[in-house]
Amino acid sequence: MKIRQLFDYETWTYTYLLWDEDTKEAAAIDSVAEQVERDIQHIEELGLNVKYLLETHIHADHITGAGPIRKHTGAKIVVHKNSGSECADILAEEGDSFMLGQQSIRVLHTPGHTNNDITYQIDGAVFTGDTLLVRDCGRTDFQLGSNEAMYESLTEKLFKLSPDTLVFPAHDYKGFSQSTIGEEIEYNTRVGKGKSYEDFAVIMDNLNLPNPRKIDISVPGNMQCGNVA
Amino acid sequence: MKIRQLFDYETWTYTYLLWDEDTKEAAAIDSVAEQVERDIQHIEELGLNVKYLLETHIHADHITGAGPIRKHTGAKIVVHKNSGSECADILAEEGDSFMLGQQSIRVLHTPGHTNNDITYQIDGAVFTGDTLLVRDCGRTDFQLGSNEAMYESLTEKLFKLSPDTLVFPAHDYKGFSQSTIGEEIEYNTRVGKGKSYEDFAVIMDNLNLPNPRKIDISVPGNMQCGNVA
Repeated sequence: MKIRQLFDYETWTYTYLLWDEDTKEAAAIDSVAEQVERDIQHIEELGLNVKYLLETHIHADHITGAGPIRKHTGAKIVVHKNSGSECADILAEEGDSFMLGQQSIRVLHTPGHTNNDITYQIDGAVFTGDTLLVRDCGRTDFQLGSNEAMYESLTEKLFKLSPDTLVFPAHDYKGFSQSTIGEEIEYNTRVGKGKSYEDFAVIMDNLNLPNPRKIDISVPGNMQCGNVA
Repeated sequence: MKIRQLFDYETWTYTYLLWDEDTKEAAAIDSVAEQVERDIQHIEELGLNVKYLLETHIHADHITGAGPIRKHTGAKIVVHKNSGSECADILAEEGDSFMLGQQSIRVLHTPGHTNNDITYQIDGAVFTGDTLLVRDCGRTDFQLGSNEAMYESLTEKLFKLSPDTLVFPAHDYKGFSQSTIGEEIEYNTRVGKGKSYEDFAVIMDNLNLPNPRKIDISVPGNMQCGNVA
């Protein structure tokens, strides 16, 4: 599977294009409304046939580009069934998979940041949304986030994958683009080696983060797949 | 060869760590002074033995982190001989190569942005500095830059590489992280398909870019490998 990482500077969001080199069947993960023109041009230049627009969750910090890209490409929008989205084409759950040519993308339910987080897994790599970030993890204080669910998703699900699995997050704020499961088991500042659930919960309960600037338009906008005025 | 891309948000600069998985011998390309602490921590967490600090050119937009990282790791700083640098350990030229374990990094002289641009080539990928950017190229209007040299470096040297060669630039301003030679031959907005040298020169002569904000401290600072007060 070919992977192309794209970045939105305003919201520090990574968008990914994945494609099967033989058939050019493709998926986009976590597109951003403001970057739709760039992304569509890039999709066309790469000659990709986009079949799936995969959302890792209903985002609070940016509006998805999935709606406009669906309109342009005819691709199907995928979100987790817990989202309650009425605009998505596919409400996915643990164990589902999507094929690009002969290659599969598998759905892992990894809640904690919200109740509808999906990690998309391909051979050798995971796209972890706001669940696992490089040396970090997503916040748990809105959208039905949960410290318990986050800790379990990280330590009982993602950290059970092969240590050399590449990790591609939905955001980064320090200039990291990727990691591996092995590095995160060792060095993640919130749940890495030596951190108990109690340690983790103290960290998460004391982050004191302001709400994302765009949360009031992003969440309802994303429930409509970004098809907002 | 393993590749890790890192980003400096303030100057839109990509730094790269390359390493041989067997021996952990490593190189860093185009480090940034403000990110030295992050980079050294990352190098240590990855267990890397940094042998070379490779500069693609004497930068005008940021101060290199090579000096401080050399001090910490004992690695050798490499710049092109045309730079006139008195602090570098190795003044490289076309055809030189550096080994990380059994894997080699080869020097291509690709002037045009300055007179001392190096593209570092490994199997399957090139690190093109400010010569070839994604759909773009570096400016040619200071530091002995030259439209003629840039056009030749792009079309006669880089575009002769295998089309599937991955391209990793020193900067990006639109959220692209990589490209391929084949894409750039086709879609580069300055020298892609159908663009003559005359077309290219008109574009370059009309960019009307302001000087980089930090040029007055960056160029002399980088001539000292970033060892500035």
